[in-house]
Amino acid sequence: MTQAAHALFEEVCQYVRQSSLLASVGSLLEWDERTKMPAAQAEYRAEQATLISGMVHQRWTDDKFVAQVSEVAAGPLASNGDDETAVTIRRLKRVIDKKIKLPRSLVEELARTASLGQSAWELARRENDYARFKPFFSRTYELKRQQAEALGYKHSPYDALLDDYEPEELTGNVARVLADLREQLVPLVAAIRSSGREPDTTLLAREYPVDVQEAFGTEAAAAIGFDFLRGRLDVTAHPFCATLGPHDCRITTRYDNRFFNAAFFGILHEAGHGIYEQGLPPDRFGMPLGEAISLGIHESQSRLWENLVGRSRAFWQHFFPTAQKRFPVALGNASLDSFYFAINDVRPSLIRVEADEATYNLHILIRFEMEQALLSGDLTADDAPGAWNEKYRQYLGIAPATNADGIMQDVHWSAGLVGYFPTYTLGNLYASQLFETADVELGGLHAMFACGEFQPLRDWLREKIHRHGQRYSASELVKRVTGSQLSSEPLLRHLRGKYGEVYGI
Amino acid sequence: MTQAAHALFEEVCQYVRQSSLLASVGSLLEWDERTKMPAAQAEYRAEQATLISGMVHQRWTDDKFVAQVSEVAAGPLASNGDDETAVTIRRLKRVIDKKIKLPRSLVEELARTASLGQSAWELARRENDYARFKPFFSRTYELKRQQAEALGYKHSPYDALLDDYEPEELTGNVARVLADLREQLVPLVAAIRSSGREPDTTLLAREYPVDVQEAFGTEAAAAIGFDFLRGRLDVTAHPFCATLGPHDCRITTRYDNRFFNAAFFGILHEAGHGIYEQGLPPDRFGMPLGEAISLGIHESQSRLWENLVGRSRAFWQHFFPTAQKRFPVALGNASLDSFYFAINDVRPSLIRVEADEATYNLHILIRFEMEQALLSGDLTADDAPGAWNEKYRQYLGIAPATNADGIMQDVHWSAGLVGYFPTYTLGNLYASQLFETADVELGGLHAMFACGEFQPLRDWLREKIHRHGQRYSASELVKRVTGSQLSSEPLLRHLRGKYGEVYGI
Repeated sequence: MTQAAHALFEEVCQYVRQSSLLASVGSLLEWDERTKMPAAQAEYRAEQATLISGMVHQRWTDDKFVAQVSEVAAGPLASNGDDETAVTIRRLKRVIDKKIKLPRSLVEELARTASLGQSAWELARRENDYARFKPFFSRTYELKRQQAEALGYKHSPYDALLDDYEPEELTGNVARVLADLREQLVPLVAAIRSSGREPDTTLLAREYPVDVQEAFGTEAAAAIGFDFLRGRLDVTAHPFCATLGPHDCRITTRYDNRFFNAAFFGILHEAGHGIYEQGLPPDRFGMPLGEAISLGIHESQSRLWENLVGRSRAFWQHFFPTAQKRFPVALGNASLDSFYFAINDVRPSLIRVEADEATYNLHILIRFEMEQALLSGDLTADDAPGAWNEKYRQYLGIAPATNADGIMQDVHWSAGLVGYFPTYTLGNLYASQLFETADVELGGLHAMFACGEFQPLRDWLREKIHRHGQRYSASELVKRVTGSQLSSEPLLRHLRGKYGEVYGI
Repeated sequence: MTQAAHALFEEVCQYVRQSSLLASVGSLLEWDERTKMPAAQAEYRAEQATLISGMVHQRWTDDKFVAQVSEVAAGPLASNGDDETAVTIRRLKRVIDKKIKLPRSLVEELARTASLGQSAWELARRENDYARFKPFFSRTYELKRQQAEALGYKHSPYDALLDDYEPEELTGNVARVLADLREQLVPLVAAIRSSGREPDTTLLAREYPVDVQEAFGTEAAAAIGFDFLRGRLDVTAHPFCATLGPHDCRITTRYDNRFFNAAFFGILHEAGHGIYEQGLPPDRFGMPLGEAISLGIHESQSRLWENLVGRSRAFWQHFFPTAQKRFPVALGNASLDSFYFAINDVRPSLIRVEADEATYNLHILIRFEMEQALLSGDLTADDAPGAWNEKYRQYLGIAPATNADGIMQDVHWSAGLVGYFPTYTLGNLYASQLFETADVELGGLHAMFACGEFQPLRDWLREKIHRHGQRYSASELVKRVTGSQLSSEPLLRHLRGKYGEVYGI
């Protein structure tokens, strides 16, 4: 009996590895499309990508495979607690269950609406024409309600959607912590704004030659632990990190020769994602224990390196002299203090992707609250732009003049990604929780950074987070490592400590 | 009946297009492997490539598909002469027939021997240890004899192998023309060597900054008509041209900052291949009428742009002033004449890939003659190194000191590529035949080149060669365009004319 169960489990694993192998080919198609492909190839590339993703989807929903997973999950191997086999079976069963709960007609309608919705959104945003986008926006939320009902949920329909990005997390828990955060963050940002202090950000808008930015960014990414022997850095329009195999993780950025932050902090951010991917066990590649557990944990890794490390004074105590040598025109006569203040400018703004470390989370809060209201039906597509603007006024003290710079600024809702936004702030929260623990366990991270020592932190993260893959859920993992549940306190402590000093509040 | 035949034909075409779509994904895997991929990914990339090529192979040998092609080929649509449908059917039938004639066990043994053979060859070449390579070399020719017998042939077993690279060409025909060529070329090269003249080739070994080489090579490739909106240029170790879709053709090169020729003429060569690929009808992509007809015709396009255009005085009358501006240190005080002489240095040498335009064909002749002798059994693997060295002495007046620089210098035989070599010289022969005709029809190509006008020649080639895909066999095509069969005369006229002037003979 057990022997047969083992054989069946091995067959399932072999099948999943082959599916992942095929999916990794799709990842190369996408990486190439976004970095190297001549634009004229777009149409044929779409056919190539559709072919591969169709084959991958077909494999995951194959009747025989689904039956085998169900059989293994009902068998003796599934009940061995934290044993690798049992965890693997549970994770696979979870994926399968979600796939088979969704009727094919709904999956197709979601895909069709996302495709049409994105095209409509692009045009609507360009022309600031919300009316053009509205029907797709309404339809998306209708379908998302159906998706939530089909999947089932514990307390709220939003649980079912959040689960796609943050498995096993609950809306109520996130809402509670984010409400705490909002209560503290809104007055903190207000205090910063009324501090009377402002950095000279023009020094970030001087001449930063692109090739030097690339060399400096590469040096910094390597220093924090991104392994260029198992990865690369390329240029793209909308930066991302792609994993193409157990030893091939590629990060991307875009350069602006008159703005330092975009590429540099973007590279640290993507390198953070990449370091997580490179820290997953290569021999489990394509299996649950070789894959990232959640978007929140993934984002915690990128934000940690981008913000908690990359925007710290200690980091620049080490790197600023190099930056001055590399960018003599821009930084030759700047001081470390003025540079540090400039990269930590806090300023309420309308566009999420350009927001600073503190106000960023308010952008997310607004989206998270609106998503729940839109999904429950408390808010309609007609009233959504007004609600958006009102929340911006309330939390950030400013409101957009156009819907293009307001409710239509993000691609997510047009693409059917509902429940995704909170993972950005979960990332910030987890990052601070992990950083505080690492700081205690390793004994003073900033002193290490000031000497250019980043390896201890990377190794700690590898040991505590990366190597586990999907063995523990995100919240279990953070609890095991930090001893605490999700909490807004570490992030708030970090922000208060840093900005208290910078802004003298 | 005809309606059913049309429906079946359409189904076959649809299937073939899907197979090509999948194969094009494999081409991306290979392009990426050779240009961008981190070396650490090699093992997983091999798995990805094997998966895709296995699926493509499975599709081509699928029983239902094979039966459908046979049915269409036996039906009314196949007999309409030069009609597109009839040609398509004949080409597909040809491919299928060759595939089904080879027993699976032989295909697998060939693949296994090629894989082991290449590994053994790499090591054997590095250590100059022919004995290590010999068993694989013998075995390869044994298997190639079996392959030829399984496929069948008209006059000689070599016909069956040649057909893989130069469909419908016959060994006897190629042998006759290459023997003509040899009789004239050996004394021509000897006359050049005893002319007493020698160019100063040191000016090609001055400082040529890599980034400037890239910019200049790109400018030249664009000038001769490679479309960078539908392609790109990257760096690799062993340059190649890859087609990934109807509007995505990528060329590659390698740079040596102390040698001008390698990258520049390499780029023109690959751009020549690329211009052919870009000239195939995009709406026939993945079907016989959208694919190159033979390696000989492909090579005729690369050699034509590399040698007949790129090494002409007229080309440099236009480009030399630019080259001087771009490379002031290397060429600032060089004359057009000295530069032109240097890039047309004729010098018997041991290594095929480094050979000049004239002696190159003697390297090919040696290989072509040896392949036939090895296949027939007239020559054994034991005697092959001696035969190789003797032929080098006879045709080129020099002989290698080691087998590494002799019989083991090329990858082809270790990889099971027998019958491939003559297509290089077929390319040179066809290039001269086509160039002579174009020169007459367009009225003086060199005068155009001197003014930087390359578009008329590219458009002529597109009209006469590229757009036909596989509609005509290589020899039919050249006969249609030039009025002549394969002949050594145009190439000899070109070489005599050029070197007669350069070397005063």
